[in-house]
Amino acid sequence: MTIPETMLAVRQIGVGDLDQLELVQVPVPRPGPKEVLVQVGACGLNNSDIMRRIGGYGSEDDPASATGWKRQPPGLPRIQGSDIAGTIVAVGSDVDIARRGHRVLVNPTLYNLGPEDPTDVDYLGSERDGGYAEYCVVPSANAHRIETDLAFEDLATFPIAYLTALHMLNRARVACGETVVVTGASGGVGSAVLQWAALRDARTVAIVGDGKENSALSLGAEHTVSRTAAAMNKAIRDVLRDRPVDVVVDVAGGPNFVQLLSVLRPGGRYVTCGAIAGPVVTLDLRTLYLKHLELIGSSYGTTSEFAELVAAIEAKQLKPLRAATFPLSRAKEAQAAFLQKRHFGNIILECRRSQS
Amino acid sequence: MTIPETMLAVRQIGVGDLDQLELVQVPVPRPGPKEVLVQVGACGLNNSDIMRRIGGYGSEDDPASATGWKRQPPGLPRIQGSDIAGTIVAVGSDVDIARRGHRVLVNPTLYNLGPEDPTDVDYLGSERDGGYAEYCVVPSANAHRIETDLAFEDLATFPIAYLTALHMLNRARVACGETVVVTGASGGVGSAVLQWAALRDARTVAIVGDGKENSALSLGAEHTVSRTAAAMNKAIRDVLRDRPVDVVVDVAGGPNFVQLLSVLRPGGRYVTCGAIAGPVVTLDLRTLYLKHLELIGSSYGTTSEFAELVAAIEAKQLKPLRAATFPLSRAKEAQAAFLQKRHFGNIILECRRSQS
Repeated sequence: MTIPETMLAVRQIGVGDLDQLELVQVPVPRPGPKEVLVQVGACGLNNSDIMRRIGGYGSEDDPASATGWKRQPPGLPRIQGSDIAGTIVAVGSDVDIARRGHRVLVNPTLYNLGPEDPTDVDYLGSERDGGYAEYCVVPSANAHRIETDLAFEDLATFPIAYLTALHMLNRARVACGETVVVTGASGGVGSAVLQWAALRDARTVAIVGDGKENSALSLGAEHTVSRTAAAMNKAIRDVLRDRPVDVVVDVAGGPNFVQLLSVLRPGGRYVTCGAIAGPVVTLDLRTLYLKHLELIGSSYGTTSEFAELVAAIEAKQLKPLRAATFPLSRAKEAQAAFLQKRHFGNIILECRRSQS
Repeated sequence: MTIPETMLAVRQIGVGDLDQLELVQVPVPRPGPKEVLVQVGACGLNNSDIMRRIGGYGSEDDPASATGWKRQPPGLPRIQGSDIAGTIVAVGSDVDIARRGHRVLVNPTLYNLGPEDPTDVDYLGSERDGGYAEYCVVPSANAHRIETDLAFEDLATFPIAYLTALHMLNRARVACGETVVVTGASGGVGSAVLQWAALRDARTVAIVGDGKENSALSLGAEHTVSRTAAAMNKAIRDVLRDRPVDVVVDVAGGPNFVQLLSVLRPGGRYVTCGAIAGPVVTLDLRTLYLKHLELIGSSYGTTSEFAELVAAIEAKQLKPLRAATFPLSRAKEAQAAFLQKRHFGNIILECRRSQS
């Protein structure tokens, strides 16, 4: 394999609109001793790409300040992209050369406190360069070999969404037979939650945009509710005929927060990994303690969970949900399409050189 | 033992100010088959007595509506009082007569889903008559025999506060060596948290009113912070010299909520059982998920935990914190004193006939 000197990449150069994404030629990076160079086959988009670009995380003291996910100004310029599937084409001095040629799915999480602790991490596309590029250097331990017939464009639908979703279900201890309400169920994480929940025989109510009901049902959802329902709690109670809700898995936040808590049974759990519909909510602490609720925050996942994801893909237990594919050079259009929320599943960039 | 026909009792007759408490002579109740009649030696006060009297719980849909803790209008009239220590003077037909004469500490929790599940309960002084009276009927299973030299007035400081505090520490998985911030640490539940935390070798920072620092330190607190500190998060970080906080045990809620979350380490836990300083707070869901926090609601505790409380009292591991004692006939004054928050620990009613 011949590795070129330079590559096409899309960098975030500032905080703001789509014009902060810049298509550039940059040197192909070289792997350090414990790293590998991955030829990126495809790279998936995530809400976190958008949030980083617009500086949407605020700070604990000022919810409106423009920050990256560490709630500081984000490092710039930075090649975005966290969901990388590709081929190892070069290895660092401490890495077995036999890894060259392996197809890999990359865990973008860089663990500062060890591989099973996601409470202090960096990640590819944020604290170091990611996969909106033809090549990307990643720690060898993060490049999980995967043996499957799926195309890179399909594999790139999985990493962050499915790792995040699995970790949420584990944090909330979702068990067989439990009833789980899933918001944003047509998005990346939400649809991943539907699939993981089905694998553990939990029963899901999918909150989806109009017209996306059948997609959610085909992933195992038992019921759907429109995300524009006027009274979300009543709509959920209606489809469940007042069966109690054990867990709410929320990726949306926003004005429905209070109603989502109101459908939870006493002792129920609410778990969130994002709040694109509105991060700052009103909480009545009496509801929290009188109902014995747990509100659980979750981000990323563990190395073991990522290995479980790879195994589930290899066992064909998870269906890739690729809604649209754009060439790397059209990353801006891809993010614009992502923001329109007309898709079900994930939007993917093709990054192979032949297509750039 | 001669049981009289009537007894002195203090009933809540409406929702409102102290004038909703009425001193009356009523018939002494008779125990049902699985119940016992307790001659009340002493009965402790709780925030929940006040909250019930003023209708302070709101509803999920309307935080300002006047409700009892079940968030419905409270049942009236009702003899208040949940912290009962006394002597069994009569037993129901299914109860061993040998129980007569036993000194008991009463678990006020009436479990609708079994003795280890506090998520659906009633309680003495709320859904049925309590201990602001000379006599009280309770389920035999709730009357725990206690062998100790402590006076009833001291024993009555323990039940709700120490059961609630223990359940909170268990829900939040407070472990040896962890650093725990405790709000309202001069109150009943807060001071109970200090004592239980010390027993498991956790390190506590007690948030207390001015002048109450030494009382908190004598219960094992490592540091104190004034509850009127202008910047609560900075004050906590200062005394800890930036050592991370693992758990916040909050009985207060209110304006310090955001700052309490800000001192928690990533992966930290916040647990609450009350919100007398303000129940409706603002929550930034990004803080919840980016820091992997858990917000845990807790009320009451389990039968096993109550048995652990009785054992700890018998083993002299817990110190009764009786701040003031009033005769039953002066229950209004006792509640007024309770509301002034000048005390450390609990306020007690003496209920023995000879003193009424």
